[in-house]
Amino acid sequence: MTEIKALVHDVFGTVVDWRSAVTADGQALGARKGITGVDWQQFADEWRGAYAPSMNRVRTGELPWTNLDALHRMGLDALIEKFGVTGLDEADKQWFNLTWHRLKPWPDSVPGLTRLKKKYIIATLSNGTVRLLTDMAKHCGLPWDTVLASDLVRHYKPDAEMYQSAIEFLGSGDPGAVMMVAAHNNDLVRAASHGMKTAFVGRPYEHGEKQARDFKAEHDFTYVATSFEDLADKLGA
Amino acid sequence: MTEIKALVHDVFGTVVDWRSAVTADGQALGARKGITGVDWQQFADEWRGAYAPSMNRVRTGELPWTNLDALHRMGLDALIEKFGVTGLDEADKQWFNLTWHRLKPWPDSVPGLTRLKKKYIIATLSNGTVRLLTDMAKHCGLPWDTVLASDLVRHYKPDAEMYQSAIEFLGSGDPGAVMMVAAHNNDLVRAASHGMKTAFVGRPYEHGEKQARDFKAEHDFTYVATSFEDLADKLGA
Repeated sequence: MTEIKALVHDVFGTVVDWRSAVTADGQALGARKGITGVDWQQFADEWRGAYAPSMNRVRTGELPWTNLDALHRMGLDALIEKFGVTGLDEADKQWFNLTWHRLKPWPDSVPGLTRLKKKYIIATLSNGTVRLLTDMAKHCGLPWDTVLASDLVRHYKPDAEMYQSAIEFLGSGDPGAVMMVAAHNNDLVRAASHGMKTAFVGRPYEHGEKQARDFKAEHDFTYVATSFEDLADKLGA
Repeated sequence: MTEIKALVHDVFGTVVDWRSAVTADGQALGARKGITGVDWQQFADEWRGAYAPSMNRVRTGELPWTNLDALHRMGLDALIEKFGVTGLDEADKQWFNLTWHRLKPWPDSVPGLTRLKKKYIIATLSNGTVRLLTDMAKHCGLPWDTVLASDLVRHYKPDAEMYQSAIEFLGSGDPGAVMMVAAHNNDLVRAASHGMKTAFVGRPYEHGEKQARDFKAEHDFTYVATSFEDLADKLGA
């Protein structure tokens, strides 16, 4: 088995708890603007729900390359309309759209990644942008060595180009030198199809009480862990 | 004046002292293999001398895209022949070629960049590869938020694509939000031509006693500093 040199990991859901941060920013915005009657957790869930379909419009060629900030903004504008939110000016909308740059890590993410960084290159492999991910790292002290992001290759996972970028840029072309870490079975199945090693980190509360899948590893991944700290234990880091 | 959000910096010569590290690795290799009569500092200087011409072969289309590890290896093989070095096996050559991944920072680089990181996104904009730069950061504790590298865009500075990548990925398209930091006047002149802000950090000893240019800022750059710590002072970081 080739030695693992780099761990690349999914971010939304795997490293950060998007749901509580987006909900909290919505509630803060609502309080500041005197908006009542909006269920901001439902708003957050529907915003996230628009994520995969919006990327699929790019992946299938229906839309030209559109980065995730712009896709998030399209989702936000549609939900402002749907939820009947009024009184937001352009600066408010820009601020709320950047909530995705300010997400907060699960409690084990920073300590676990800090341990893993001593032994491996650690990098994102995320559908976020370079700027979103660097902003997020600075906002919450995530110790990434570098970020691999969708705007670098103008593709979204699960397109092959994303996994191949990790293999080329961090594995020097050897897929077995790179391990994909994610809380989502489908992301890992795609990574494995390119020859990458795989580690499942369970996040059974990503969607709160609405979670419908990814409660556990459903395939024979290289490692299965309950947190980044547990993964560091299993890798001797 | 647009607020500066990101500092992107040249690496070879600006952040790290390639000359002493490559010379030391050559001397160590010579001692280990019983090689005598080779001036390893001269070897290092000629290896570095092959750098710009080899990239120009790619930039002009004479060679297809070839990453910097491969260009360094072509230079190494030619110099082994020229200097009459014998007795190296393939593992020795691979080890020596990776000397460029193990370069050491000038004394002010890590403390200065650590201060600048508190106020700005800090990233490389280097003709090295993503892997070379992440290896270097881990080797010597460079605190980059992310790396922007030639293999991401398959171009070498001073091609426009490199500067544009920093503007797109870290400046959200606004060139004035990104400042190029380098010890080389020509790098900064090119960056300025794309609307980027510029900071000259003097490295009058990059080439030792053979230094022939870049003793000082020759143009009206946004900032002129004597070190990364001096730049942090000037930027109030």
